[in-house]
Amino acid sequence: MAAAAPPPGPTPAATALPDPTPIGHPLFTRIRLATASDVPHIHKLIHQLANFEHLAHHCSATEASLSSTLFTSPPFQSFTVFILELSQTPFPPQLHTHSALFSPITQTITLDLPIDDPEIETFKSNDKDCGFDVVVGGFALFFPNYSTFLGKPGFYVEDLFVRECYRRKGFGKMLLSAVAAQAVKMGYGRVEWTVLDWNVKAIKFYEEMGAKVLQDWRICRLTDEALQAYANPAAI
Amino acid sequence: MAAAAPPPGPTPAATALPDPTPIGHPLFTRIRLATASDVPHIHKLIHQLANFEHLAHHCSATEASLSSTLFTSPPFQSFTVFILELSQTPFPPQLHTHSALFSPITQTITLDLPIDDPEIETFKSNDKDCGFDVVVGGFALFFPNYSTFLGKPGFYVEDLFVRECYRRKGFGKMLLSAVAAQAVKMGYGRVEWTVLDWNVKAIKFYEEMGAKVLQDWRICRLTDEALQAYANPAAI
Repeated sequence: MAAAAPPPGPTPAATALPDPTPIGHPLFTRIRLATASDVPHIHKLIHQLANFEHLAHHCSATEASLSSTLFTSPPFQSFTVFILELSQTPFPPQLHTHSALFSPITQTITLDLPIDDPEIETFKSNDKDCGFDVVVGGFALFFPNYSTFLGKPGFYVEDLFVRECYRRKGFGKMLLSAVAAQAVKMGYGRVEWTVLDWNVKAIKFYEEMGAKVLQDWRICRLTDEALQAYANPAAI
Repeated sequence: MAAAAPPPGPTPAATALPDPTPIGHPLFTRIRLATASDVPHIHKLIHQLANFEHLAHHCSATEASLSSTLFTSPPFQSFTVFILELSQTPFPPQLHTHSALFSPITQTITLDLPIDDPEIETFKSNDKDCGFDVVVGGFALFFPNYSTFLGKPGFYVEDLFVRECYRRKGFGKMLLSAVAAQAVKMGYGRVEWTVLDWNVKAIKFYEEMGAKVLQDWRICRLTDEALQAYANPAAI
C-alpha cells in the first residue's frame, strides 16, 4: 500500500490529473466584408441600434433602401460594411477573400462562461463556407472621407454596433481596430466617427483607443423640407 | 431758345437720356465641376482656407497629394469639387457639360462697386471655353456620406471657401445651395458639414439656410501615431 501513498511534500495531483471542467470557453471570431446577401441581417442590426439609442422613430431604413444603396461600388471606395461573426468552432481556412485589399481577420477569445444568444436563429450567418453555428454579432458601416489639409482620404465610421449579448467583450474594439488597420494599410490619414457628449463611457473607451474628441466642432445638418427647398438653386 | 428749355414740371432727362454712370456692375457667376486641371487653384485655395482658420501649420496638402487622390472617380460617387468662377462678361452657352448628372449653374448679380481682385493673375480660370477675364473665386469639396437610419446616402461638405475679396456677396450660399440642389436631384437624404462652436456668424448664416446645428454630438478622430498603432489589428 506504501507504493500507492502519495510521496512526501505537495501533491502533484491537481496538475497531473485532467481537470473535469475546462478552463474557459473558446469563442472564434471573424471580421469579413459584408455582401448584398447580408442586407437582412444589417437591416435588423440597424433597427436594434436605433432602439438602443431610443431613436427608432427616426429609423426608416428598409431592406429595399439598403439593397439599392449599399454594395454598388467595390469595397472601401464607397459605403463598406464589416460583419462580425462568432462561432464555437474554428473558422475554415480562407479559400477565397472578397477583395484583394482585405483578408478576413480571425481571432480567438476565451470566455469564463458561454454566451447564451437568444437570437441565434435570427442571426445565423449567410456565409456558405461556414457551418451552421456561425452567428452575426455586430457590424461597422464606414466610407471614405477626405481631409483637404492632409490632402488625403480617411474613413468615417457611421455605425459601430454589437448585439447586446456580445457586449463588453472587446468586439466593438475589434471592429473599430479593423477599420483603423485598413486605413493604415491604404495609406489614409484619419479615422473619424461621432459620439454623444453625455456618453462618458463611450468617450473614455474611444480615448483609451487613442482617439481625440474634438470639443469645439458642431455638425450642421440640412434635411427634410429644409433640404427639399434647394431643389432649384436659381430660385434660392 | 424756348424750344431748348425744359418743359414745365419734372424733367424727364434722368430717364430719357442715357445715364453716364451705369446703375450697378453686373458680375456673371458660374459653378462648375472641377477637373484635375484645377488642382493648382484648389491647392492655393486650401492653403488660403488654412491661413484663414489660423491652421496653416496643420496643412500639408500638396498639388501632388491632391492630384493622386482627387478626380479618381466619376463626380458625386466620391470626392467632388465645385469651382466658383466669376466674370465681367457673360459665360458662353454650355457647349458640353462635364457630367450627365450636372449642368453648370450660372447666375448674374449686380454690385454697387466693381470688385478689385488683387490675385486676378493667380486665379485666372483654366476653362478653355472661357475668355481671359474669368477668375476662380472659391470652391466646395464634398463627397457622399451615408445615413443608416434613412437607408440612403447624403453629401458631406468638407470645405466651403470663398476668396476674401469676394466674401459677403452671397457666393458661399450659392456654392452650398448648389451642393444641396444636387443632393435633392440625386434623391439623397441629408447635406452635412461642421462649424466651430464659437463662430456665431457662421452658425447664424447656416441656420438661416435651414440647417440644424447638432449640439450634443462630438467628432472622434484617430490620426497620426495613434492611428499607425493599428497597423496590425491582431496585435491590438
